[in-house]
Amino acid sequence: MSEPNTKRLKTSNDAEYELIYWPGIPGRGEFVRLLFEEAGVPYKDYARTADEAVAKVLALTDTNNIGDETNPPILAPPVLKHGEVVLSQMPNILIYLAPKLGLSPPATEIAFYHLNQASLTILDGFSNEVHDTHHPIATSLRYEDQKDEAKKRSKAFIEERAPKFLGYVQRLLHSKTSGNGPWLYGDSLTYVDLVLFQCIDGTSYAFPKTMSQLKSSGKYDAVFELYEAVKERPNIKSYLASNRRTNYGDGIWRHYPELEETIEVEVNLKE
Amino acid sequence: MSEPNTKRLKTSNDAEYELIYWPGIPGRGEFVRLLFEEAGVPYKDYARTADEAVAKVLALTDTNNIGDETNPPILAPPVLKHGEVVLSQMPNILIYLAPKLGLSPPATEIAFYHLNQASLTILDGFSNEVHDTHHPIATSLRYEDQKDEAKKRSKAFIEERAPKFLGYVQRLLHSKTSGNGPWLYGDSLTYVDLVLFQCIDGTSYAFPKTMSQLKSSGKYDAVFELYEAVKERPNIKSYLASNRRTNYGDGIWRHYPELEETIEVEVNLKE
Repeated sequence: MSEPNTKRLKTSNDAEYELIYWPGIPGRGEFVRLLFEEAGVPYKDYARTADEAVAKVLALTDTNNIGDETNPPILAPPVLKHGEVVLSQMPNILIYLAPKLGLSPPATEIAFYHLNQASLTILDGFSNEVHDTHHPIATSLRYEDQKDEAKKRSKAFIEERAPKFLGYVQRLLHSKTSGNGPWLYGDSLTYVDLVLFQCIDGTSYAFPKTMSQLKSSGKYDAVFELYEAVKERPNIKSYLASNRRTNYGDGIWRHYPELEETIEVEVNLKE
Repeated sequence: MSEPNTKRLKTSNDAEYELIYWPGIPGRGEFVRLLFEEAGVPYKDYARTADEAVAKVLALTDTNNIGDETNPPILAPPVLKHGEVVLSQMPNILIYLAPKLGLSPPATEIAFYHLNQASLTILDGFSNEVHDTHHPIATSLRYEDQKDEAKKRSKAFIEERAPKFLGYVQRLLHSKTSGNGPWLYGDSLTYVDLVLFQCIDGTSYAFPKTMSQLKSSGKYDAVFELYEAVKERPNIKSYLASNRRTNYGDGIWRHYPELEETIEVEVNLKE
């Protein structure tokens, strides 16, 4: 059993929250933002001051940076600072934050792990795999230098992966653990509903024809109803209408029309 | 705040642990196995009875399966059963198990999140990305049908990704949060050391020339020392020598010599 020297590191509830992420894209930082926005909890978002954000990201991810007395170094943003605590890996930031923001039960309950299970699965399908549709070979290469491979990977995403993951979320919504109301788990909104919202929103930007066709199929109605229900949450609605919400462009969810060209012809949607 | 109907679901410490995973490969199930083996805690491993394992995986992942009264459905194995609890998503299973097995502090400590941060990052580099070196286009296609793309993706892994992630782990080991001894966090072994062990072991099977060259560079000595230290843990040593340890073959870590052909010529290793 470890006795790390950080074991006494605690967070006070009144410590300021800070989000450090690349400016100009929603990206993985957007999931963290949505939790704060829904909860109505203030957070400092460096993305609003682009130069400062870039400088902070570069300093945190510098290969000479080995962290500090109580925090290990981080490989990539987003980074959450909360008082003395520095955390990375977005799904990890979500499980740290969600119970504090009233968006998840605590880790003493099984629900905490069922929610993380759903979060990781939804992120696999609609964040990690969508990123790889335009960068299947190397993140260091430009999209234009892997376009042929991107078309092949996108075909598999459109025909197999998107229906498979949507079908899984639909099953989650039909399970006994999804209670009353449109939510994924229990009778009220959790952070995983926000994760799903962002994933569907981003994937619909990237693959509009695909998602429109999947929606029209009627096979995933509960998923798209949940998407709309999140969009109508007062705090989320107000956030989406504000200039704090970043437009899509580069990042995880990119729209390259040629990646959907197979959808022009008949698509064999397998679940 | 959610009030899921599973909120009172508790696990008793004497409930039996069961691991359900595909037989015949180490795969993602191996991380779960290593935690039980190091802790010396008994677990039922269905992989030892292949037909039963396959039947259980297929039943759990059937698209008509919507879980039960207290557990949502799951998309893919590994699956952990612990009494009434059913959990999937391997990194999620690890954070559920590790505190119970004495391999992580509880979720009330920041160390729990720092460990998950390291675990997710190491798994990104040496499990998820290694899988994609042989399947960059589609998991539904055979390797032979995406070999050209696999060669390109492997080149990026060999030259950029492997050094980048090894460099990050080396930094973790030089950080203040890595205490005395060879361990990643604190002064004694945690589950993340086991995660790293399996990742280095599997990646060394898949890319032997690459990993040998990276080891010889002397830039990642602390990483390879940790690997050896885990291998010498009495319980792990005895496990690795037993028939409970599965040989590599298919699955995440596969050895296709042609994917390392670029290592024959001079490789420009960037971190």
